[in-house]
Amino acid sequence: MLIVKKFGGSSVADKDRIFNVARQISESYREGNNVVVVLSAMGKTTNHLIAQANDINPRASRRELDMLLTCGEQISVALMAMALSSLGIPAVSLNAWQVAMHTNSAYGNARLKNIDTERIAAELESGKVVVVTGFQGINKYDDYTTLGRGGSDTTAVALAAVLGADACEIYTDVEGVYTADPRVVPNARKLKEITYDEMLEMASLGAKVLHNRSVELAKKYGVQLIVRSSLTPAEGTVVKEVVKVEKMLVSGVAVDENVSRIAVMGLADVPGTAFRLFNLISQKKINVDLIVQSVGYEGTKDIAFTVSSDNVNDVVSLLEQNKEILQYSSLEISSDVAKISLVGSGIMSTPGMASKMFEALYDAGINTRMISTSEIKISVLVDKRYAHKAMIAVHDKFQLGE
Amino acid sequence: MLIVKKFGGSSVADKDRIFNVARQISESYREGNNVVVVLSAMGKTTNHLIAQANDINPRASRRELDMLLTCGEQISVALMAMALSSLGIPAVSLNAWQVAMHTNSAYGNARLKNIDTERIAAELESGKVVVVTGFQGINKYDDYTTLGRGGSDTTAVALAAVLGADACEIYTDVEGVYTADPRVVPNARKLKEITYDEMLEMASLGAKVLHNRSVELAKKYGVQLIVRSSLTPAEGTVVKEVVKVEKMLVSGVAVDENVSRIAVMGLADVPGTAFRLFNLISQKKINVDLIVQSVGYEGTKDIAFTVSSDNVNDVVSLLEQNKEILQYSSLEISSDVAKISLVGSGIMSTPGMASKMFEALYDAGINTRMISTSEIKISVLVDKRYAHKAMIAVHDKFQLGE
Repeated sequence: MLIVKKFGGSSVADKDRIFNVARQISESYREGNNVVVVLSAMGKTTNHLIAQANDINPRASRRELDMLLTCGEQISVALMAMALSSLGIPAVSLNAWQVAMHTNSAYGNARLKNIDTERIAAELESGKVVVVTGFQGINKYDDYTTLGRGGSDTTAVALAAVLGADACEIYTDVEGVYTADPRVVPNARKLKEITYDEMLEMASLGAKVLHNRSVELAKKYGVQLIVRSSLTPAEGTVVKEVVKVEKMLVSGVAVDENVSRIAVMGLADVPGTAFRLFNLISQKKINVDLIVQSVGYEGTKDIAFTVSSDNVNDVVSLLEQNKEILQYSSLEISSDVAKISLVGSGIMSTPGMASKMFEALYDAGINTRMISTSEIKISVLVDKRYAHKAMIAVHDKFQLGE
Repeated sequence: MLIVKKFGGSSVADKDRIFNVARQISESYREGNNVVVVLSAMGKTTNHLIAQANDINPRASRRELDMLLTCGEQISVALMAMALSSLGIPAVSLNAWQVAMHTNSAYGNARLKNIDTERIAAELESGKVVVVTGFQGINKYDDYTTLGRGGSDTTAVALAAVLGADACEIYTDVEGVYTADPRVVPNARKLKEITYDEMLEMASLGAKVLHNRSVELAKKYGVQLIVRSSLTPAEGTVVKEVVKVEKMLVSGVAVDENVSRIAVMGLADVPGTAFRLFNLISQKKINVDLIVQSVGYEGTKDIAFTVSSDNVNDVVSLLEQNKEILQYSSLEISSDVAKISLVGSGIMSTPGMASKMFEALYDAGINTRMISTSEIKISVLVDKRYAHKAMIAVHDKFQLGE
């Protein structure tokens, strides 16, 4: 079997953890598997490097930031290869250039374009464990790029896809995908299996276990993902295309507290208004999530949408700069909101799911600020201070606990 | 003018020093020069990375060590590019791969083979200061290599050579090349000029201001080197092919305290003995310095030589493993020795220089354990505890002070 294993920064934060991971890798190797390992930077290394950069130049170019940050993973992979070798396992570390891992040139948030398999295949052929830097790539100018949040997951899935790996194991600090965040909902249950689409909704809706880009990629290339703990041998959750028929209609409840609502009031109620608005935002590569349009006063309309709280300032100044073009009357910004989502492939095909969810929130005395539904999820925006209460209420209502 | 400026690790050890260097670079840039900057890793970064590696695997492969260590300079150059940019100077950082800086595959002690100038030339053309990682290269397998001690000096000189730079300025924590180490000999005098050959002897004999590989390279390609301080604007020392005629016969006195003497006693006095001995050592890539052969008892001969103290254990175990092949009776090892050298292009052409040096040592009551001479230097081995006393005695005898 060819297995790609990805370990995050906390799993390689110090010598003990590096050896803990190295021992797991060596077991898999000694069972006869070909193993490719993808690592993030150790512990707080990336944050530390960013702090150094900010101290020197808070407006440093993303090109130079990526040049700096890519050292983080290079240190991880070199040390891991040394640890493996001290356990008697032949290993070689490779960075994005050595692989080569081609991306576009969006420094700080680059997209993978293609990955050469020649070097990795040759190293596997010679019997080595191949330890690859996650999160990073190179562009056509021979500059380093980074893939943005969750980038190492994406690297692992992409490698699994191009190498035709039998599985891609994502090791985290939780034991798998749960029906809700176990820290918020104590009786949350670990799922044995989940479909790509459900995982995608869970991921993009705030379940931090996997980044949605990595799930999209896994779905696209049919890579079987396994989410499991680097600390316990528990089985984890398998993410794949089709899961057993007896599975539940609802997979879980996700929360995203890093979300803000922007309402653009008094827009002209003519064709093209929404296009101009969202085209402007998408040109800045900012993702818009929920969108709700409502009728305003006297031939106007209001459009409210949510964005990641990281982007809210950028969006607001963008809208203010373009007030004359967009012709709106005012903006309303709420950053004290959270998005609660119910996810499950059976949601739309089962009548009454939405009303059951709203009932749970009504019973708990929680007001919903926005509502949005898709084939496999229902999302509502609530006041942030009610987020956890809302999760527990919905989780209980659908009897997702153990 | 195209100027290559090299700064060592202590010159970029923290934010203040990085900006100190950045300001010097910006001055040179604003005077209209094209500037290429070569940097070492910040402060103790390399030592810290080596310690991390040793903690994980004391027998880590050199290939993985180089993969780890090359991050050190990459961090320096990225931060320097950010600092320059915050001063309004357009800058770009490049590592060994991006340049590309090709070496052979002797990990940890690689030799430069050739350097592509295309990327650097393009960046200079676009008006940028180009900040390049010193000390590192890439080999034909697309692996990182490091150049060994003094490697960043070598990088700087090599870049100056291939780019046809007008000067290569090596910034250090001293103001130039002195007639002797000013910390040992208080009245040591700074030289305005010195020839490559003299500098080469000074460097290889323990004057730590420049590594001899970099001087060899400068001589080979006629690169004008300037050794100067990163802390003061003092003029420094120019290293070039021919210096003014009125120059002194003697340039200075150097000491090397990191040297050990190994005597191989009772070798067969037949042809090939010395060849077998030194061939064995050179196969391990260990440099032998002074060699003295003397007649031993009953048709045998003794050969004594010096090596860097870093290599003495390796050489001794090598000799012990090959005792039967080499057929010697015993080994004598002295690590409590120091090499004092008098350097100057006029030494051999001026009668009485050697005897004047020996007289100085005799007057000071210091015994010489080995003697070796070349065209432009006289070296003697003395007990380490007399090293500084010997330097002062010789420096005074030749009236080198101010």
